[in-house]
Order: sequence, then C-alpha cells, then structure tokens
Amino acid sequence: MADKPFLYTILSPRLLDVYDISNSIVVVIDVFRATSTIATALYNGANKIIPVDAVDKCITLGKATPNSITAGERDGKVIEGLQHGNSPAEYPRSFIEGKTLVLTTTNGTKLLHMALNNGAHTVITGSFPNLNAVCSFLIQQNKNVFLACSAWKDRVNIEDTLFAGAVIKEVKKYFTIHCDTSLMAEEIYTAHENDMYNFIRKTTHWHRLAQYGLEKDLEYCVTKNVANVLPIYQNNALITH
Amino acid sequence: MADKPFLYTILSPRLLDVYDISNSIVVVIDVFRATSTIATALYNGANKIIPVDAVDKCITLGKATPNSITAGERDGKVIEGLQHGNSPAEYPRSFIEGKTLVLTTTNGTKLLHMALNNGAHTVITGSFPNLNAVCSFLIQQNKNVFLACSAWKDRVNIEDTLFAGAVIKEVKKYFTIHCDTSLMAEEIYTAHENDMYNFIRKTTHWHRLAQYGLEKDLEYCVTKNVANVLPIYQNNALITH
Repeated sequence: MADKPFLYTILSPRLLDVYDISNSIVVVIDVFRATSTIATALYNGANKIIPVDAVDKCITLGKATPNSITAGERDGKVIEGLQHGNSPAEYPRSFIEGKTLVLTTTNGTKLLHMALNNGAHTVITGSFPNLNAVCSFLIQQNKNVFLACSAWKDRVNIEDTLFAGAVIKEVKKYFTIHCDTSLMAEEIYTAHENDMYNFIRKTTHWHRLAQYGLEKDLEYCVTKNVANVLPIYQNNALITH
Repeated sequence: MADKPFLYTILSPRLLDVYDISNSIVVVIDVFRATSTIATALYNGANKIIPVDAVDKCITLGKATPNSITAGERDGKVIEGLQHGNSPAEYPRSFIEGKTLVLTTTNGTKLLHMALNNGAHTVITGSFPNLNAVCSFLIQQNKNVFLACSAWKDRVNIEDTLFAGAVIKEVKKYFTIHCDTSLMAEEIYTAHENDMYNFIRKTTHWHRLAQYGLEKDLEYCVTKNVANVLPIYQNNALITH
C-alpha cells in the first residue's frame, strides 16, 4: 500500500518557506474575506477572477479586459479608482454572471503569488462557503497538501486557522499528518464548530471590520458550503475547476 | 488610569520581526527542553547559564570559564566534545550548585539572540517549572510583553504554545490583548491543562524525543512550578533575578 501524502498547516505567509511545497497542492485561505468572495463570485457565474497585488495593476487590467469589473477595499471602503468592494454580498448572479472580476487584496494575493513562486504544483483557494469542494479535491488528488493561511499583515489569525481545522477534520484519514499546527487547528475548530457566529466575535478581524457594518458579511464567511465550487489558479486567473 | 500594557504571542522565530518588540519584555519559551533545563539548573544553584548557538563556541567558553561545564544535545545524545546533555534531570543541586553552565541549544538560543538584536528591553526564559515566577515578574513590571515560542526549526509546536496559554491565563487581566494567537494559545491550554501528560504524547516533539527514552523528562517539562526561579539575561548570561 502506498504511503499517504502529507498534510501541513501554515499559519502565516512568513512561514511558507519553512516547508518544501514543490509538487504539492497549496490551499490559499483568506476567510475574511478574499477567498470567501472568490468562491461566491465563481459560484454565481463569474467567468474568472484575476487576483492582483496593487491598485494600479487592478485599474490597468480592468481597462484591458473585456466585460470586467475592478474591485478592492481598504479599511472597509472601496478603493478610489476601483468600482466594487471585497464583500461576497456584492456578487449575486444577476450582477457577476459572465464577467471577469479583477480583484486586489493584500494578504491573500501576496500568499498566492508566494506559493506559485515557491514551486507549488497547484494553487486553489479555500473558504467555508466552498469547504466541501476543497475537501473533495484534496482527497481525490492524492498529493501532498499545504493549508496556507493568509493571516493579517503576517499575524496569525483565528478565522483562517478555523478553516484549516475544518478541512483537516474532513480529510485527515487520507493524509499523514505530523504537524502540531494541524492538530491545534483541528482542536480549535472542533471546539467551536457549533458556535462559529459567537466565536468569530472574539477575533481581532471582527473588531477591525464590524465597525464598518460588516457583521452579516463576516457571518456569511463562516457559513459552510453555500458556494461550493473549486477555484483553481490557471493562466493567471482563478477559474472553476 | 493608565492603559494596560499589551501582550502578544509569537509562535515561531520567523514571526518575531512582524512586531515591534523595543522597550518590551520578551519571554523566550523552549519547553522541550532548553528553558525547562535553564530554570532547573538555576533553581538548583547554578551560578549562571551562558547560552551559545554553536558547539565550538560552547567548548571555547567552557575552557575559558572557571568552574564551568559544557552541555548540549543533538538527537537525544550529548554532542561530541561536550560534557553533558540538555536534560533537566542532569542538574540536581549536588552537581550544579555554584557552577556555570555553558549550554548550546538550537531553537531557544537563536530566538534569545534575535530578541536582543531586535531591541527587547528585557529577555527572560519561561517554562512550566518556573511558570509562577514568570507570571509574577510580568505583572509587576507593567511593560509590553511578547511570549515568544522557539518552535522547532521555525515550525510552530504545541508545547511552547501551551506554555504561552498558561501564562496568559494567569496574567490576562493585567494586559490589553488584541492578539488572535494569544486567544488560541489560552484555549488550547485551558482544554488540556488537566490532561497534559496525555496531550503532549500527541506532539511531534514527543515522537522525536520519546524514542530516546526521554518520556520522564518530557513529563517533568510540563510540570508546573517545580523550579520557580526567574532566569533573566544580563551581561551575556542568564542569572536568577
């Protein structure tokens, strides 16, 4: 019987190059809110999503791409020069179907490009809205997996760790897990899986974003399987697998 | 009323420079086993402990220091050229009293020097055997605090996180804590504080060291307040406060 592939959890982009991620699947996690928005927009029929790390690139690409919209937020407000924000609620099917979303985020996009530069075989994005799609893909691929949390300015955060724990709980019997981080993530998730709406109110990110009236957004972002698609990075864009 | 000082938890040396630690107290944590051994040797009357990051430095300093012994392990064995290992059980009062211990470790020593280079005001070491001494000092100083885990080759580990959680549980009312890592550390500790001997058997470090017959050592290293001194770094050595 072949050995099971490995699974590791990485709590901050700073810790990515502690591991050899070559020939592996990297799951980029940015629960509040980039990867939740990505899953939602693709679920609602977006053609593709181009993640970019700078506002000027977002504007330039938006102009160059037919039927596209630009989006990005800083401190809960749409960035000047862009058209839309980083809330999943802004992307219902009636609006986003068939369009290309050019999205600038800070933590998640940086990590996605780091994963590609460090030789990841496949990069996908994960969030509670597409939890099952992520788990099914990981089980089916039979490759080493890194659950990579985007964190906030490199600081470890609870919401991304919780999602890593949710994945581990579902897939662990298919992987070899010698990783204290994964054990802790699963513990934290298991302790709070039936209490998520309350628990996220304790996070630093909640306190940062709730002042902008985003409570409903944040609750949506920890709701499982309401946008169950698999965003996979190919040819500079995230598309549905 | 003055604001309370801040407290943050840092899970890996790689994350240290995400934070501004200047004018702060840094608690270096290396539960298995450097900081547990340091507390024990000082509790048992060691004159001082000189932590060094390389074996040749350890040998040279050992020769140059009167009434000293050299110590260090790799893979559970005393390093060739040194006299003793990294087990707290090797340092009873009958042996260590009045001596200087020149100790080479990898993860803990590296982090200690990083903290000094990044401008920490005070560096102390923490472990379960000296938990209360650490907590009393932190409460009394009224300075910002960073609980800094040594990790293992930069990978986050459970045992150091547990100790951070134990400190937080004791001192939290004296600090402002806007830090998801601290919340998670406290949760993990609270979930397992009455089950430590079993829980540590799940860690990667247990599996690494137990094969060398160090189970009793590791259990000692999660026993609270059996060597209740405060090791503080002054003039290139750790001494009792």
